[in-house]
Amino acid sequence: MAVQSVVRVGVVGATGYAGAELVRTLLAHPGVRLTYLAASSDGPPLSETYPNLQGADLPPLEAFAVDRAAQAADCLFVALPSGTSGAISAELWRQGCRVIDLSGDLRLPGPLYQQWYPHAPVDPAAQTAAVYGLTEWFGDALADASLVANPGCYATAVLLALLPLARAGWLTPQTPVHVDAKSGVSGAGRSAKLPYTLAELGDNLYAYKVGLHQHTPEIEQVLGTGTRVLLTTQLLPMIRGIYACMYIPWRNGPDLNAVAEAFARSYAGKPFVHARPAFVPQLKAVRGSNTCHIGWHWDERTETLLVMSAIDNLQKGAAGQAVQNFNRMYRWSETLGLSAFAVYP
Amino acid sequence: MAVQSVVRVGVVGATGYAGAELVRTLLAHPGVRLTYLAASSDGPPLSETYPNLQGADLPPLEAFAVDRAAQAADCLFVALPSGTSGAISAELWRQGCRVIDLSGDLRLPGPLYQQWYPHAPVDPAAQTAAVYGLTEWFGDALADASLVANPGCYATAVLLALLPLARAGWLTPQTPVHVDAKSGVSGAGRSAKLPYTLAELGDNLYAYKVGLHQHTPEIEQVLGTGTRVLLTTQLLPMIRGIYACMYIPWRNGPDLNAVAEAFARSYAGKPFVHARPAFVPQLKAVRGSNTCHIGWHWDERTETLLVMSAIDNLQKGAAGQAVQNFNRMYRWSETLGLSAFAVYP
Amino acid sequence: MAVQSVVRVGVVGATGYAGAELVRTLLAHPGVRLTYLAASSDGPPLSETYPNLQGADLPPLEAFAVDRAAQAADCLFVALPSGTSGAISAELWRQGCRVIDLSGDLRLPGPLYQQWYPHAPVDPAAQTAAVYGLTEWFGDALADASLVANPGCYATAVLLALLPLARAGWLTPQTPVHVDAKSGVSGAGRSAKLPYTLAELGDNLYAYKVGLHQHTPEIEQVLGTGTRVLLTTQLLPMIRGIYACMYIPWRNGPDLNAVAEAFARSYAGKPFVHARPAFVPQLKAVRGSNTCHIGWHWDERTETLLVMSAIDNLQKGAAGQAVQNFNRMYRWSETLGLSAFAVYP
Amino acid sequence: MAVQSVVRVGVVGATGYAGAELVRTLLAHPGVRLTYLAASSDGPPLSETYPNLQGADLPPLEAFAVDRAAQAADCLFVALPSGTSGAISAELWRQGCRVIDLSGDLRLPGPLYQQWYPHAPVDPAAQTAAVYGLTEWFGDALADASLVANPGCYATAVLLALLPLARAGWLTPQTPVHVDAKSGVSGAGRSAKLPYTLAELGDNLYAYKVGLHQHTPEIEQVLGTGTRVLLTTQLLPMIRGIYACMYIPWRNGPDLNAVAEAFARSYAGKPFVHARPAFVPQLKAVRGSNTCHIGWHWDERTETLLVMSAIDNLQKGAAGQAVQNFNRMYRWSETLGLSAFAVYP
Repeated sequence: MAVQSVVRVGVVGATGYAGAELVRTLLAHPGVRLTYLAASSDGPPLSETYPNLQGADLPPLEAFAVDRAAQAADCLFVALPSGTSGAISAELWRQGCRVIDLSGDLRLPGPLYQQWYPHAPVDPAAQTAAVYGLTEWFGDALADASLVANPGCYATAVLLALLPLARAGWLTPQTPVHVDAKSGVSGAGRSAKLPYTLAELGDNLYAYKVGLHQHTPEIEQVLGTGTRVLLTTQLLPMIRGIYACMYIPWRNGPDLNAVAEAFARSYAGKPFVHARPAFVPQLKAVRGSNTCHIGWHWDERTETLLVMSAIDNLQKGAAGQAVQNFNRMYRWSETLGLSAFAVYP
Repeated sequence: MAVQSVVRVGVVGATGYAGAELVRTLLAHPGVRLTYLAASSDGPPLSETYPNLQGADLPPLEAFAVDRAAQAADCLFVALPSGTSGAISAELWRQGCRVIDLSGDLRLPGPLYQQWYPHAPVDPAAQTAAVYGLTEWFGDALADASLVANPGCYATAVLLALLPLARAGWLTPQTPVHVDAKSGVSGAGRSAKLPYTLAELGDNLYAYKVGLHQHTPEIEQVLGTGTRVLLTTQLLPMIRGIYACMYIPWRNGPDLNAVAEAFARSYAGKPFVHARPAFVPQLKAVRGSNTCHIGWHWDERTETLLVMSAIDNLQKGAAGQAVQNFNRMYRWSETLGLSAFAVYP
Repeated sequence: MAVQSVVRVGVVGATGYAGAELVRTLLAHPGVRLTYLAASSDGPPLSETYPNLQGADLPPLEAFAVDRAAQAADCLFVALPSGTSGAISAELWRQGCRVIDLSGDLRLPGPLYQQWYPHAPVDPAAQTAAVYGLTEWFGDALADASLVANPGCYATAVLLALLPLARAGWLTPQTPVHVDAKSGVSGAGRSAKLPYTLAELGDNLYAYKVGLHQHTPEIEQVLGTGTRVLLTTQLLPMIRGIYACMYIPWRNGPDLNAVAEAFARSYAGKPFVHARPAFVPQLKAVRGSNTCHIGWHWDERTETLLVMSAIDNLQKGAAGQAVQNFNRMYRWSETLGLSAFAVYP
Repeated sequence: MAVQSVVRVGVVGATGYAGAELVRTLLAHPGVRLTYLAASSDGPPLSETYPNLQGADLPPLEAFAVDRAAQAADCLFVALPSGTSGAISAELWRQGCRVIDLSGDLRLPGPLYQQWYPHAPVDPAAQTAAVYGLTEWFGDALADASLVANPGCYATAVLLALLPLARAGWLTPQTPVHVDAKSGVSGAGRSAKLPYTLAELGDNLYAYKVGLHQHTPEIEQVLGTGTRVLLTTQLLPMIRGIYACMYIPWRNGPDLNAVAEAFARSYAGKPFVHARPAFVPQLKAVRGSNTCHIGWHWDERTETLLVMSAIDNLQKGAAGQAVQNFNRMYRWSETLGLSAFAVYP
């Protein structure tokens, strides 16, 4: 593998939380030169919106224009809202850029997309071309990818926990899985809505979009086992993190050694996933890092396998995994520029 | 109903969180004279330990002695740790006091108790005599009760949500229920342990005692349907509150009108329980109050009924419900001295 | 003192945080019948906006109209934003209602008001007639008051701590006082602004309006000593509470016994203020209560007297003190319907 | 400057918060090989105590022994409690190691130390030899240093804000400075004490050690102007961060241009300090980074200059600055391995 020269990188949607997390992460990436920052309109330097970027050497914040973007950068991260992001990513991709799209727009085929999203689907050619960027599972396809659909945050937490079981043939259409998932509020984006204020969300916790969350079909499709998932998404009085508990009914129970082997085999040599039996993930242990922690518990009394996983929604659930995918696309070391170890306490 | 004269009341275990919540609540109760405060040893005035009680007119904090307690008070709340509390309650009861025990010691018959608690069970006569104080369901038995086993916090949140379904005959031994329950840390008591520090628990969330929590048999026993429950207890970076999501597999689904009627019938005229369809409880809406909020969602795709409930673990889950039981025992209005409306925001 | 008949009470601005706190508090007040709720426009029942009020027996939420208000209620609490509130209060007062205004509009004479507020001042007759409702200091004037200017939250915390010193003649024009004051975000009102979101304000703390906060002239005027105050207001990642540290340079130092006596004299028989030497207030000890805790420390090395005070900004800093004033106006017991003891933990 | 070969580094006191932050930071440092981890006794792998270090390649955790330490590492960070740390650092230094001590033991001459610390002072030779590691001010002395006294967290926040004024001759013995400083609880170390639990400290804020904090003499000594400082340390319901407000009385006021120049001159070319006029630091903007933000405000009315500064107490206030000092000692780039940009939101 030849050493790469530095890649000119742009971030579209830089003022959102995933965008700003991309900028912060890419600033520390030795293989990247940040050459382009855009949002829906131009604005003050990003360090005025994000005081943590005070002193950073950043390009100006431009109003997005496809030609300008395609000329300024070789690879673009597009982190705009679903309904807008995918079409822009597709256009940049057709112009010859390599593109990583962080929205939901490129993850589902059009008809399924329309059932779960209140938007028109993107051009099917782009959607079909997009590699689903759950790095640990589809990383080999990334080296040649020019268009990547970066997974959703809930989908990442759930799929990393369930795919080892699905691939072993243990999930079935007959038995639905109950997914009780809790998220920090940054998953809702940088949004001045009353329910997201500290006065309203502090000391609070509640479910939302019960059974209707748009990451549901993404999970079911990637599992590919016909298993139905009830995804109960809940808002925590926290800024970052997803903690998912997955309840899998299992008459007579699994061979627990085989389960442990399935996880071990799936994540051998994967630096960002730690999965082991008799382990209870903690949300704080992954906060601010690109790491996913997975544990499981077999409950004899109710014949249920409970699998638990924890990620940081803005890192492994968004910007971190996007950079991990970028590393695979450009054949850098998978961990380059990424933090494997959470800030603690 | 004749107006009661004021009752002389004592709190044993006053330095714990449930005890201090009892003291604060009873101070505002017009039918109560607080005449006795005790802990395992004597100590400084309770207002030194609890600065919120600064200025309160409180009896001194004594080392518990059964004779002294029985002489000083007509009714005693005993809020000591399980393993200690029940025997003391039984002794006070044998001395002729009316007693409300907030521990787990009087809730389960001895053999079941021994399976789930690391202590010896109490005298079976006391355990059998104790009325289970889930007020909305067993309130009629309280008027004549001299010994009350106050329910556990998780058990209260779960049972108020499931009993209407159980009594309607809709829960079965064939289908276990997955209960994903999250709690604030005050449920663990006033305890200087490292995992409970703000540095460790702040920004954190994790499961504990998975499948092993001692409220499991309490729930199963009171449901009385042979239904097995997997209780996943999780610690939130919050002080107060329990939020429980209960997943009930239901082939072909319920008659949703009948479900709504079951809840309406169960809680008609019950001032502290609000249960209605198309409602998502919020933890903050019950914080600091004796109220329980319940809602439910039928998920066609996975044939699952999800029921959600929220309580304050120190109020409806402990001290508040204890005072509600006291009100029934002494034929006061059920709401006397209790707050139905949470402090918000 | 004759027992009062029940007073018909209205709340104008019921959808704001101070308004909703008034409603919650007044619901538990035995001398009150809530007969009128209004906001700038009509809306759904208040319990939809405030889920903690689920099940409360509340009047509908009307668009404010002065005639309707004056007919529906004998006493009105007006908790609208400064710039709107005062004029409405004045009009209701001219119609013969007794009015407690929670805004800044009636606290300052017109010329001073115009220096610090971006609004036109109210009719001077109303402003002059308004009794400044710092209950512990001006309570005697309240019994006959028909119009009350309820103090600001920062002003309450600072004045309760400094007035004993000011009245003793120990504050001078020569030595300014540095007031380092921190507040929970509910003080900013129910407002969907980005800086108030949990994502932005969580884990954060910063000063705002340094030297420019509009409670500055209110403090200086009520002190009446010519002392200048630098008020550094800071936003905490918390919902409720004000914690003020006041630095008073004092060459050669005070007679500490005289200081203790000044506080003792000022607050003897005042149920909501606890002030004593060698005491460090804690914010949590007053949360959700109408209580103010005050302590002080003489620092020999720097010849500075540090006085610290803590209140709940929505209780003693707004709605609680308003109800305390109402109690004085109607000759109820000062504590009726109010909580002296914070929810803890 | 020749490229350094990799340095063998050890951390003594690795189980504490500053120690664990050192380990996490050093793991990402390209010039470091972590060869030695020690605590007062041996224990399980550090990743069991710190789940964020899951998967890290770490040496075992040994019971500290001076010979073993001196043989295993070339440079040692000693992050033990004051009273223990300094003597161990001195001993390692005498054995020829280069040592960075994070405690208070080497910062003050013996007589002053004894006034403020409840311990015996260390050997005067070691104390005198130790370079005070406030990097931006004493960095030139570090290249040849073999023993470094890393500054205290409060001292760092205050000195970075006041030294530009002190060196310009604007601080005097006549006018004391009031420092109102607030800290996250991690500053108290990894300590299972009741006041630090989330139940007790959540929703709380209070002053402690008023006028008695041991960082007071450290600040006064380094300022070197004879100025007395009243340091009011306060505990926040937060994990990380220090926010200091410094009130400087200034009759007739400063030349504001000269003030701006003094800060600009002091921090030109210093990558971790951002100081500018009309700027209000935010705690969150430095969280998890080695950065210090400084702003100031001149208040004409009270003739006071208010200077504000914000740091992360475990980074710039402890482990981060220690690594910054290490970089200077070994002539690495000052920023190597350190994060200049906070995780946000």
